Amino acid sequence: MTHTDYLWFNTAKRREFVRITDEVAGIVRKSGVTEGMVLVSAMHITAGVYVNDWEDGLIEDFQVWLEKLAPSGLNYRHHQTGEDNADAHLKRTIMGHQVILPITAGQLDLGPWEQVFYAEFDGQRKKRVVVKVIGE
Amino acid sequence: MTHTDYLWFNTAKRREFVRITDEVAGIVRKSGVTEGMVLVSAMHITAGVYVNDWEDGLIEDFQVWLEKLAPSGLNYRHHQTGEDNADAHLKRTIMGHQVILPITAGQLDLGPWEQVFYAEFDGQRKKRVVVKVIGE
Amino acid sequence: MTHTDYLWFNTAKRREFVRITDEVAGIVRKSGVTEGMVLVSAMHITAGVYVNDWEDGLIEDFQVWLEKLAPSGLNYRHHQTGEDNADAHLKRTIMGHQVILPITAGQLDLGPWEQVFYAEFDGQRKKRVVVKVIGE
Repeated sequence: MTHTDYLWFNTAKRREFVRITDEVAGIVRKSGVTEGMVLVSAMHITAGVYVNDWEDGLIEDFQVWLEKLAPSGLNYRHHQTGEDNADAHLKRTIMGHQVILPITAGQLDLGPWEQVFYAEFDGQRKKRVVVKVIGE
Repeated sequence: MTHTDYLWFNTAKRREFVRITDEVAGIVRKSGVTEGMVLVSAMHITAGVYVNDWEDGLIEDFQVWLEKLAPSGLNYRHHQTGEDNADAHLKRTIMGHQVILPITAGQLDLGPWEQVFYAEFDGQRKKRVVVKVIGE
Repeated sequence: MTHTDYLWFNTAKRREFVRITDEVAGIVRKSGVTEGMVLVSAMHITAGVYVNDWEDGLIEDFQVWLEKLAPSGLNYRHHQTGEDNADAHLKRTIMGHQVILPITAGQLDLGPWEQVFYAEFDGQRKKRVVVKVIGE
């Protein structure tokens, strides 16, 4: 049994992390799958999906850290195409662009602090995440 | 067909990489699934799961490298909550927190050097990994 | 329903990114699965698989960036075994070694710019990627 759904985003800021645990749980409920897995995957290559803590300080730490490891404003070759978002491609690579969550007894089988986030690195326009449920 | 199991860890050191290939293979055997996939995913957000070499030198290289990319002891905002483990959240992000292994003809379908590891970055307490098998 | 296939690589250069979207789509077509997922996973631990842009400038940016974050030629402990490729293990960790692609209505369910790449960091020899399809 499979079920496919999509989440849409249009963030107010260029970089923004959005918690989506409840939206994913809602899609799993709708799917009727009680044992299986759900894939949550960014369909745009300047955004990511990750699992970590729902704590504003840590989210700020992630942003600062990513800017240090993959700075914006450098003279990237990708920018010769007219783009200015090479750092967004790199940042999303560090965070990861997809997660798989187990579904057990009709629920997302998550640890006590696990929360799913959409990580936007080049926002302020419509972008999509695919949510694919598979199981019984 | 699905099967769910959990691995528990309580590492002696705060940071420790533990090989779990055999434990995962054992769960796959027990599941009866001969064609499918198995998800191995850390349920705590300061730990990871990754696939790489079972070689002590490289494991030490990983530890040194992670400390360079995501240093401990910095003045992280997350620490204003009373925590002191922001670097553990970052380190686990680089290593990844989950892997999916294919199951073919009743076996983990791994390359010659692929080994699965649990990567603990804030240990010395009980933590859990979910192992979810799906297939036929 | 499952289907297993393998892609072989023997890159001309030590480091090379190879687009494999069409090869993966071909395997999915051959599998007969119209709703499900496909796992694409490097079987060697100095190679990765990732999804990002098919743009030569960005690919060059990735190479430069990875060399900065995980330099070759350092005095890695792994090299005491006679190897000289510790940086390849680290680089593949940043890029990721596997992706899962959703299959919807008989097609890879990818965003407009999503392309799948094999990332070789220690090539010039035969290496393999497993492609495992699961679904209906």
